[in-house]
Amino acid sequence: MRAPFAVTSLIREGLDKLIPYDAHLYPGVIKLDANENPYPFPEEVSRRIGQLAAGDLLSRYPDSEASELRRAIAAYAGVTPEQVMVGNGSDELILNILLTFGTEGRVLITNPTFSMYKIHSLVAGARPIPVPRRSDFSVDVPALVCYARQPESRVIFICSPNNPTGNASTLEEIESVLQQVSCLVVVDQAYLEFGGEDCVSLLNRYPNLVIMRTFSKAFALAGLRVGYMLANPDVLRQIKKVKQPFNLNSFSQAAARVVLEYRDLFRKQIQDILQQREELWQGLQNIEGVTAYPSVANYILFRTNHESKAIYQGLLEKGILIRRLGGPELPGFLRVSVGTPEENRPFLQALAEVLKQAGRELQ
Amino acid sequence: MRAPFAVTSLIREGLDKLIPYDAHLYPGVIKLDANENPYPFPEEVSRRIGQLAAGDLLSRYPDSEASELRRAIAAYAGVTPEQVMVGNGSDELILNILLTFGTEGRVLITNPTFSMYKIHSLVAGARPIPVPRRSDFSVDVPALVCYARQPESRVIFICSPNNPTGNASTLEEIESVLQQVSCLVVVDQAYLEFGGEDCVSLLNRYPNLVIMRTFSKAFALAGLRVGYMLANPDVLRQIKKVKQPFNLNSFSQAAARVVLEYRDLFRKQIQDILQQREELWQGLQNIEGVTAYPSVANYILFRTNHESKAIYQGLLEKGILIRRLGGPELPGFLRVSVGTPEENRPFLQALAEVLKQAGRELQ
Repeated sequence: MRAPFAVTSLIREGLDKLIPYDAHLYPGVIKLDANENPYPFPEEVSRRIGQLAAGDLLSRYPDSEASELRRAIAAYAGVTPEQVMVGNGSDELILNILLTFGTEGRVLITNPTFSMYKIHSLVAGARPIPVPRRSDFSVDVPALVCYARQPESRVIFICSPNNPTGNASTLEEIESVLQQVSCLVVVDQAYLEFGGEDCVSLLNRYPNLVIMRTFSKAFALAGLRVGYMLANPDVLRQIKKVKQPFNLNSFSQAAARVVLEYRDLFRKQIQDILQQREELWQGLQNIEGVTAYPSVANYILFRTNHESKAIYQGLLEKGILIRRLGGPELPGFLRVSVGTPEENRPFLQALAEVLKQAGRELQ
Repeated sequence: MRAPFAVTSLIREGLDKLIPYDAHLYPGVIKLDANENPYPFPEEVSRRIGQLAAGDLLSRYPDSEASELRRAIAAYAGVTPEQVMVGNGSDELILNILLTFGTEGRVLITNPTFSMYKIHSLVAGARPIPVPRRSDFSVDVPALVCYARQPESRVIFICSPNNPTGNASTLEEIESVLQQVSCLVVVDQAYLEFGGEDCVSLLNRYPNLVIMRTFSKAFALAGLRVGYMLANPDVLRQIKKVKQPFNLNSFSQAAARVVLEYRDLFRKQIQDILQQREELWQGLQNIEGVTAYPSVANYILFRTNHESKAIYQGLLEKGILIRRLGGPELPGFLRVSVGTPEENRPFLQALAEVLKQAGRELQ
């Protein structure tokens, strides 16, 4: 006789710590929750991209090496194609790094930061270890080095500019870590086009450096999922063992190449976003009861005197979606993406109203 | 002092068993190696798909639930949307199944079969256990059940129609396995549109059944990487814990929906492929020294009296790429995808010539 099927008894250990990602769609809202490029996708570029969707590009398997895209990225980033690997978004690259190096080891995560480092550590069967940032959200380099020298430390994640805090680590800080540890140091520079120092100059000197980047933010391709990493070819060769052969579809490969060709159009948009970041920052400063944190990225972290849940919900009722942060590290904090003037202004006005309302309810 | 960085010392255990996938591109050859749909992608459909590539579809994050595509798949497959999960190709789904259920457990693989079950088992830290098929390539159900009753058995993979052997398991065989085991039974039906019995009728009766399918074969979307699985919602809820939130890009989601709208166009192509399979089969029968195996899929397994390496290489020199199989289970075997008449005829002619040449060299 067979035992009855019991799904939970078959699940592997550790998975109970994970909660499935449940995304809600809010059609028609002003979307300032995901740090996307808010400007209209340039029509000239989308026309070129649309024409790619035909024939063998659709019906044949992708180039598993993504050779042409890797060459284009290498030229853009100032590295060789052998130092480039592309992925189905940075998410896949994070998971692959952890499946190669992290499993059964310690993964040091400079909290508060992007949540996927921890989630994918658990998925890969690694032990995520939080290494708290200082109160100004800078990386505590001596503490990090101390943690990294404990046995079984395998991978460090440093997000710079850091999501969601908005500050960047200096090149000196990154280099200081690289000099003192022998594990893999992953610097996630998804927001580099908006600010912070480019770590590529360190790549040839430190074989344990991995730089992650993406087309999802400044280059407006969040929908197509194109992330990439820059690293020592020996490191990439190991990660290739766990990489799915056809991880990045043909269309996304080709579209990302077109976007790089038109990068000047996106540079113009980036300038506009930086201008809007300044406006948004000023606007937040002018609202009583708001504490905003300086940002070199395309979002701003802030908190108020009220429960973040009420503020988040109040904004949503006014048709504006931002990100509510949780956990013990950022209690009551919120993050707003830099939008267009037509998005930022209503957000600022709605926030002022929601705070006024919340203040009245307290009296 | 830090120890020097040594990449191999950081890699986790078990990864040394894996060899990175090295794909070679052979531009200009007749490509009969990857079981793709060989017919020109219908222009009406690619025009519709190309128009999707604009605005928010590019610049905003995908719908992580893929709600609309799941609804369309559910209608096509005769299940509910809650029984559907989509992936970045079946590869990602296989990995996610194994990361959820396989890690540290036994994964039973009915060899010879698709190589990714074993590779992803190793990536996920599971123990792949080969369960040999019979000499006619049918699944040895009593042996499989016996293996599945050993402790720590978590997942069974049955590919039907089986790649690369071309035969399918009957519904009775699948049901017999489901009745006798309490682990997850994954039936990979990537080639279902070409033949074999649809297992959907078993889905509501067996909560441990997972059916995998794809848009890469009959539906000609290999370039866009759209796989899906049909399963008990409780099983999918667990797998969702390890799934990357934005695993399937927006463009592939939308394109797959368009393809389902036009499925009658593809049904016509499938009929043509089945006709060509018959022609290819007859052609192989007519070549002396070739033993071909009956197939209900869009490829044919065969062997010759000569070393498969020489045959493979001889064909490649004549501009024809097929798949050479290796390993102890299929020594000397080759697999050819069913192409168009303009591809199959030159293949058959070239194969006859290569065999004649090989015969002369032996004398």
